[in-house]
Amino acid sequence: MKQKIVMIGAGNVATHLCIALKNAGYDIIQVFSRDISNAECLAPLVDAVAIDTLSEIETQADLYIISVSDSAIQDVIYEMPDVHGVVVHTAGSIEMETLAKFPLHGVLYPFQTFTREKELEFSQVPVLVEGNVSLSRKLVWDVANAISDNVQKANGSKRKILHISAVFACNFVNHLYALADDLLEKEGLEFSMLEPLIRETTQKALSMKPVHAQTGPATRGDREVMNNHMEALNSGTFHHDIYALLSESIFKFAKNEYS
Amino acid sequence: MKQKIVMIGAGNVATHLCIALKNAGYDIIQVFSRDISNAECLAPLVDAVAIDTLSEIETQADLYIISVSDSAIQDVIYEMPDVHGVVVHTAGSIEMETLAKFPLHGVLYPFQTFTREKELEFSQVPVLVEGNVSLSRKLVWDVANAISDNVQKANGSKRKILHISAVFACNFVNHLYALADDLLEKEGLEFSMLEPLIRETTQKALSMKPVHAQTGPATRGDREVMNNHMEALNSGTFHHDIYALLSESIFKFAKNEYS
Repeated sequence: MKQKIVMIGAGNVATHLCIALKNAGYDIIQVFSRDISNAECLAPLVDAVAIDTLSEIETQADLYIISVSDSAIQDVIYEMPDVHGVVVHTAGSIEMETLAKFPLHGVLYPFQTFTREKELEFSQVPVLVEGNVSLSRKLVWDVANAISDNVQKANGSKRKILHISAVFACNFVNHLYALADDLLEKEGLEFSMLEPLIRETTQKALSMKPVHAQTGPATRGDREVMNNHMEALNSGTFHHDIYALLSESIFKFAKNEYS
Repeated sequence: MKQKIVMIGAGNVATHLCIALKNAGYDIIQVFSRDISNAECLAPLVDAVAIDTLSEIETQADLYIISVSDSAIQDVIYEMPDVHGVVVHTAGSIEMETLAKFPLHGVLYPFQTFTREKELEFSQVPVLVEGNVSLSRKLVWDVANAISDNVQKANGSKRKILHISAVFACNFVNHLYALADDLLEKEGLEFSMLEPLIRETTQKALSMKPVHAQTGPATRGDREVMNNHMEALNSGTFHHDIYALLSESIFKFAKNEYS
């Protein structure tokens, strides 16, 4: 008999998880979203029922996955009825103990950036898991292994550091791409000019220790170029302040004078 | 008859350029470096003579490529004898007019990050060129096209913006990878955990407009997660200050409240 899962949330992570779980043979019985139209987008993809009221949740499912924005988790927990299965969240920086209201609880944290519209090979996504007792630990472990080839146990503090490192290596990196795009656009230049450079930067960082791959004016302590660049960026802008702070950080890091 | 080139410099850019030019059929006759051991590393790879004194430069070559750090360019120009060929530099943020001492001059700026030890398909590297008169323009154009499939004309101000955008999308991005690595290392975690995330981030930024690929707590304005992360990073550290500034920048950028 197929194990039953209720998905609470219908955003980027919930969507990718639902599809991966469905493909792995799980039965997604309900998809909840406060905005029913979001639930109705996702539910048909995995033959689930869309709901927008937490009291309508089936209490006999095996697993409840809370995959909403961090700031909405507390309200969801408060409004959820008592359930018999294991309740997990998918957040990097929320303690498992937040779910203590439920006798069986845990965490299933997929360590990847998700965009709803973009397909993705879920088996390659590292999944970090935790459970409060052996029953929940085993269920979360099995479910994670059914959808990913890279499952690891991680407690809350380890998970938080991983989350922070992902903010640096993914969210912040993407923002730097957006700022570069913004600079080029103002000059009528295409972002695609940067493609060979971006590919090479990524490949280098993955093939050697990033600190050893560092190049550019700040690494060399070339103040003339740096000042020249900062003059071109107007002072008081984020471009300018980010240029100054990251350059200083690179310089200190290279010289081992890092705080 | 093969055209003759003198390479002034023996660093990352000079090394990759020399090899690409040699493969394209040019005759690299001399490689200069103030540190003769650097010149002696590179020269034999391209059958050139290593020199460490600028007065020894052959004055009858077709092209002189100054590929030294920006801060060393002025001294090189000052010490170079009068030559008959075209003199170019390879710097993103130095005006072509810096070379005005030479009747024929220009710029050949390879828009890529180079590491000496890492091979690279030069034909894919965008090369930005400029020349002061038609003779130098034509020579630089032809040489660039012999080594790259992507040659574009660019004046000094366009080249500078490209350089700055590359500092953001390459040097600063790599530094964020180094900071993420630093955070993980302190917890005994491997940087390779980030590999799927880094690959996906890069792929997304290259397949959609980066600003539309932005995810993470700052985009959502999730202050709770951000404060939680900043508490984990100690205040007064670069990690902390970079987290704060980039988060603020992402938030403002997403809300179109950008300065």
